[in-house]
Amino acid sequence: MADEASPAHDPSDVLALDSLLTSEELAVRERIRDFTDQRIKPDIARWYDDAVFPLELAPELGELGVLGMHLEGYRCPGRTAVEYGLAAMELEAGDSGIRTFVSVQGSLAMTAIHKWGSEEQKQEWLPRMAAGELIGCFALTEPSGGSDPSSMTTVARRDGASDGAGWLLDGAKRWIGFASVAGVMVVWARTDDGVRGFLVPAGTPGVTATPIGRKLSMRASIQCDVVFDGVRLGPEAVLPGALGLRGPFTCLNEARYGIAWGAMGAARDSYEAALKYSQDRMQFGKPLAGYQLTQEKLVNMLLEIQKGTLLALHLGRLKDAGRLRPEQISLGKLNNVREAIAIAREARSILGGNGITLDYSPLRHAANLESVRTHEGTDEVHALVLGQHITGLGAFR
Amino acid sequence: MADEASPAHDPSDVLALDSLLTSEELAVRERIRDFTDQRIKPDIARWYDDAVFPLELAPELGELGVLGMHLEGYRCPGRTAVEYGLAAMELEAGDSGIRTFVSVQGSLAMTAIHKWGSEEQKQEWLPRMAAGELIGCFALTEPSGGSDPSSMTTVARRDGASDGAGWLLDGAKRWIGFASVAGVMVVWARTDDGVRGFLVPAGTPGVTATPIGRKLSMRASIQCDVVFDGVRLGPEAVLPGALGLRGPFTCLNEARYGIAWGAMGAARDSYEAALKYSQDRMQFGKPLAGYQLTQEKLVNMLLEIQKGTLLALHLGRLKDAGRLRPEQISLGKLNNVREAIAIAREARSILGGNGITLDYSPLRHAANLESVRTHEGTDEVHALVLGQHITGLGAFR
Amino acid sequence: MADEASPAHDPSDVLALDSLLTSEELAVRERIRDFTDQRIKPDIARWYDDAVFPLELAPELGELGVLGMHLEGYRCPGRTAVEYGLAAMELEAGDSGIRTFVSVQGSLAMTAIHKWGSEEQKQEWLPRMAAGELIGCFALTEPSGGSDPSSMTTVARRDGASDGAGWLLDGAKRWIGFASVAGVMVVWARTDDGVRGFLVPAGTPGVTATPIGRKLSMRASIQCDVVFDGVRLGPEAVLPGALGLRGPFTCLNEARYGIAWGAMGAARDSYEAALKYSQDRMQFGKPLAGYQLTQEKLVNMLLEIQKGTLLALHLGRLKDAGRLRPEQISLGKLNNVREAIAIAREARSILGGNGITLDYSPLRHAANLESVRTHEGTDEVHALVLGQHITGLGAFR
Amino acid sequence: MADEASPAHDPSDVLALDSLLTSEELAVRERIRDFTDQRIKPDIARWYDDAVFPLELAPELGELGVLGMHLEGYRCPGRTAVEYGLAAMELEAGDSGIRTFVSVQGSLAMTAIHKWGSEEQKQEWLPRMAAGELIGCFALTEPSGGSDPSSMTTVARRDGASDGAGWLLDGAKRWIGFASVAGVMVVWARTDDGVRGFLVPAGTPGVTATPIGRKLSMRASIQCDVVFDGVRLGPEAVLPGALGLRGPFTCLNEARYGIAWGAMGAARDSYEAALKYSQDRMQFGKPLAGYQLTQEKLVNMLLEIQKGTLLALHLGRLKDAGRLRPEQISLGKLNNVREAIAIAREARSILGGNGITLDYSPLRHAANLESVRTHEGTDEVHALVLGQHITGLGAFR
Repeated sequence: MADEASPAHDPSDVLALDSLLTSEELAVRERIRDFTDQRIKPDIARWYDDAVFPLELAPELGELGVLGMHLEGYRCPGRTAVEYGLAAMELEAGDSGIRTFVSVQGSLAMTAIHKWGSEEQKQEWLPRMAAGELIGCFALTEPSGGSDPSSMTTVARRDGASDGAGWLLDGAKRWIGFASVAGVMVVWARTDDGVRGFLVPAGTPGVTATPIGRKLSMRASIQCDVVFDGVRLGPEAVLPGALGLRGPFTCLNEARYGIAWGAMGAARDSYEAALKYSQDRMQFGKPLAGYQLTQEKLVNMLLEIQKGTLLALHLGRLKDAGRLRPEQISLGKLNNVREAIAIAREARSILGGNGITLDYSPLRHAANLESVRTHEGTDEVHALVLGQHITGLGAFR
Repeated sequence: MADEASPAHDPSDVLALDSLLTSEELAVRERIRDFTDQRIKPDIARWYDDAVFPLELAPELGELGVLGMHLEGYRCPGRTAVEYGLAAMELEAGDSGIRTFVSVQGSLAMTAIHKWGSEEQKQEWLPRMAAGELIGCFALTEPSGGSDPSSMTTVARRDGASDGAGWLLDGAKRWIGFASVAGVMVVWARTDDGVRGFLVPAGTPGVTATPIGRKLSMRASIQCDVVFDGVRLGPEAVLPGALGLRGPFTCLNEARYGIAWGAMGAARDSYEAALKYSQDRMQFGKPLAGYQLTQEKLVNMLLEIQKGTLLALHLGRLKDAGRLRPEQISLGKLNNVREAIAIAREARSILGGNGITLDYSPLRHAANLESVRTHEGTDEVHALVLGQHITGLGAFR
Repeated sequence: MADEASPAHDPSDVLALDSLLTSEELAVRERIRDFTDQRIKPDIARWYDDAVFPLELAPELGELGVLGMHLEGYRCPGRTAVEYGLAAMELEAGDSGIRTFVSVQGSLAMTAIHKWGSEEQKQEWLPRMAAGELIGCFALTEPSGGSDPSSMTTVARRDGASDGAGWLLDGAKRWIGFASVAGVMVVWARTDDGVRGFLVPAGTPGVTATPIGRKLSMRASIQCDVVFDGVRLGPEAVLPGALGLRGPFTCLNEARYGIAWGAMGAARDSYEAALKYSQDRMQFGKPLAGYQLTQEKLVNMLLEIQKGTLLALHLGRLKDAGRLRPEQISLGKLNNVREAIAIAREARSILGGNGITLDYSPLRHAANLESVRTHEGTDEVHALVLGQHITGLGAFR
Repeated sequence: MADEASPAHDPSDVLALDSLLTSEELAVRERIRDFTDQRIKPDIARWYDDAVFPLELAPELGELGVLGMHLEGYRCPGRTAVEYGLAAMELEAGDSGIRTFVSVQGSLAMTAIHKWGSEEQKQEWLPRMAAGELIGCFALTEPSGGSDPSSMTTVARRDGASDGAGWLLDGAKRWIGFASVAGVMVVWARTDDGVRGFLVPAGTPGVTATPIGRKLSMRASIQCDVVFDGVRLGPEAVLPGALGLRGPFTCLNEARYGIAWGAMGAARDSYEAALKYSQDRMQFGKPLAGYQLTQEKLVNMLLEIQKGTLLALHLGRLKDAGRLRPEQISLGKLNNVREAIAIAREARSILGGNGITLDYSPLRHAANLESVRTHEGTDEVHALVLGQHITGLGAFR
């Protein structure tokens, strides 16, 4: 678009946020946006309707350089946090389910291995994961756990059969993204020493992963119920660097950071769909976009998109400076997903009856964001995290 | 339920609205509620997931006495407006798509024939429609028309080939409920005399009805694109009593009245699902329902359900007294659908991740209500109708 | 107004709620409305600006028949709950401070005496209070108490100096309406037997009542700090019928009932001011009322006024039938004050710059309603009362 | 505060926005904050209650360097736009009325002279205005004009009595800040050539300025009705550089920029008052701040304060780079005042009954912001300005 050349004149970048990005960042964004336009948008309605995750995208996303994008070494792209954020935004402008794949692969599974794994573990898994040749998943949430991982019931015991050097893993996980297609699972389980992470390769006996069906959200994605029934793991399965909930929580914060960006992508795509429709659709002899009630909606949508994007960028700059704190991520995730879902819903209302089909993106985005809102902490959990931060008093119980 | 006997002790009927209903009304409601519990709720997730409307329900709904429920004679049930409203509420507690079938059949197609048809037309169609043996549809909305039926482009011309006594019908309609399974279509078209209604039997050459696919809403229902290409109709096809837009608008108001009730059914079912889940689901050692943030949501949901139900009942009493006015229906439809969608969304948020599957009703209701919100006039249209009523000034253009 | 004769044509009674009222009720309303138009509206701006409560209104309100309006005997008017509600609505259309006077006098002080007093106490105080010759107040809230009356620190001990038959009262109360002008105070204090009520005549040594100044709300009303310092009371001072918090709580519920009605009066007056202004004020060559953004505001305001009024009327009918329950009152108070404050604020926004002076009522009403929202239980308290009712779980702590 | 030294640990600067400010900017802010703490906060309740603008502050504000703060030369401070914004924020944390004085003086009157005046005019007026020795005002808005300055009726005609070199000024203005205490008025009037600005010294015959009384907002400030009745002005009165509405509009945009910052100051002060109160106030045995419902409010308030401040800072950086556009200012003003008023109202609700007196700031801030919301364009005007920007279609009429 010509607008790209002089960003201040893009009416939808009313705050000229593009002027805050480096040319390298703009180039990365452009590259991901092209990918979304060419590889996601043309087929997403079909994938969503058929409830299919397009596995063929995995290596393409690897080649695009968005898997483990912010990690260094092991053939990872080594990009900045802002660049990773921009990528999440552009991918989620396509579909939250695709962005979720990138988050699970890069922010959760690869980050866990990169941060807490041994050199051997990193060498074994990360290069293939960065290339999208192998899919990873991250098994933390449990059926009755929800926002309370401290109640974990999945247990890893020292395995007597292997001289106590190996492990015996039992339990169940739920809402585990891409578990049924994963080549390796990062599984968090309670041990005598506290919570630890384990790498469980695909095909390990005793592991079953069943995709959750009849979904009204994230249909172009995969979430599974996973059961571990007497799973025998060798001593090399454990992630040596992680002990306690700080291990998985660090990864969740990585994912939340990407969500804060990604949600704004879904919001922007919803806004753009509504803007275009309102400019084309005539009512009582003039475009819908020419009515006060429509303009008020569009303005409020755009205003929150711009504020949310400015917020995400601020978080990204803090992250690249090594100063991003968990409560800041909570604020970004809480705000940006909440606003994104409101924007997608409002966009849909502009589309009239036509907005209920997959021919238009806003209702799909709104449905997807229901999952995003819950993943990695609901609004309530993040509000109480922040509430404790600012008042010094816990109100969780 | 025992609650029925002493309604003041049903905590979800906090305002004791049941005490405003006669025992006959309570009995009607109970009967429809049982039908919903036994015939809709057990299968609705499957129908919705498979995007199937359960045609087999049509005769059962006829037997239940809800098709043309408020009409007199021609084997119609002849029930009161309040009883019809209660039925809509209970059916939509099952699914908006099922309630929509009842609305299209009774409030739109049958009402058009009953009100504007000749005695022969009534005799021919109404008894079978009341029994659910024959499905009717109502073809008013056009692809580019939306909320502006005055821009109608479907045209019926006097047909020279039949000595000018018959008609030649050309045009296209969109979002026509159940057109592909209808035995008779009520079609509104522009003529030299103004807008008129025509009865078009199934199989008439030149008529094609194609279900709209890839829907994210009302998946257990059918909406079609319908094309009329040189359709020849005899002189007996025209509805003698209707001339001008008052004809179809009268029917739309009937449907809107049912929607004002129905939406509260979807809202109530969403609330009940969230209440039950929050009472069962433990978090940090106590039920979700015991937390302030959850209670605030539940209370605000219930409060709006009760207000909306009280409003619907007031409208019903006015209707039964022959004093219900169009702007009152606009207010009821605007308020009750808007609140219902907010309630369904809030209910979903209480369900956490589990709320995105068809195992729980709120997200399905929320998705359905997107259609309901648009049908028969968007929020904006009803706001401007009311705005004109109270200010005396039109602001549509 | 001619509109009164055919209420269905009053555009602001869009739901024809007047048709639900008896001619007697309409007559009562009309009489109070006239009083408000003639005795309150002409001077309220001056009273409010000068922070003066017009004491001269007390006997006039007595003559109007609104003091202890719903009580029987002792020269009380003996009106129905609906009539009392309508009176509260009309008076608060004038000013919340005036309605508050009527509530404190009738719902709190007189109700306490009428319900819990001895025959002698009733004879002594009620007739003069009903006539407005003597003002009563109701001293329950304490400086650090707020929504938690169980933490009461005002204490009444048996008084040794009078053979143990009398009482010695010590403590402090806050936000006590009209205490500085009251001829009698109903004071609630902790005793060895539990909380009891005492009648303290004006001039009793040791009692000081100081009006709270620098108010931004309820400026045409009086609230006081009251101190009891070694106040000696005879044995006849105690209200024989009240023991425990049920005594004062019964009175609070009476007051809340009146608030649910009254708030809608302030809301309606705000709406009417905004409607009239928008019809008169030209902008860009047409009245403000002719713009979509204005109409949307007016419609949403009116819609909530009508729903709130319908709700208040429903509560009134339940009350007259002897079936009104505390949680129903909580719901009415919570909803109607919350909506009223939102309406008054929205009305003000239509008035532009002119809306910040006392020449227009909405900002005054909005400011007053801040007090009303807090009196007799905040939103949060009522939400949690209702939350406990519907979930069966307490979340106050 | 120690928090200042390590801003990341100030829980209320959760996003570490202070880290985006230079040490010079932090120093400026600290200086203004001290002034607010020492010169405004101790007396503001009294000034507000007495409806008095503290004229004695004018020279102190001059000395503080905030009058014409962003202007260069003529003894103006020559500060950056960000520094000016920070000053507006800190002053409005004291009171919107005081910040308004600074805006009228610097952004409106001084900017008009600085930008459109002759060298003689600048020399004559600006130094004394920068010092606070002389107050200026800006007379644009008219009684029936509101948001539509193109309907201006104040007229300046060539004055025959002075050979046509002078002017004869007639008309009326309303809501003119500080006109009654101004030494010089910048008056905008229609001429044969278009709208022009005139400098009218205090005491010019035919000019009367009457403070508007009975205000419920901005009581520590002055707004006037001003009448020009056959006012004779010499040829030197006209501002040579301004022709057409672009002249006053440029000044309005300066003021709006300051408002976007200032509103966040009022919001922050409201939040801090509510936070402190909730930490101190016990209810049911624990601080209010420890309850979920309170934390949710505080978090949402803080979240919007931080987003609004980040937005204001972004606008400031654009302004300092010479790239700030009018629609960006509209967005900032619209968002920040709207959010500030919501925050002040929410803060008040935490204060319970005590929040209605001038002992606490939130209700005063909320009342003030009603004026700020209207000044320099209502929400609706800014929404439609932005609506036109993004859709390319005007919807004002």
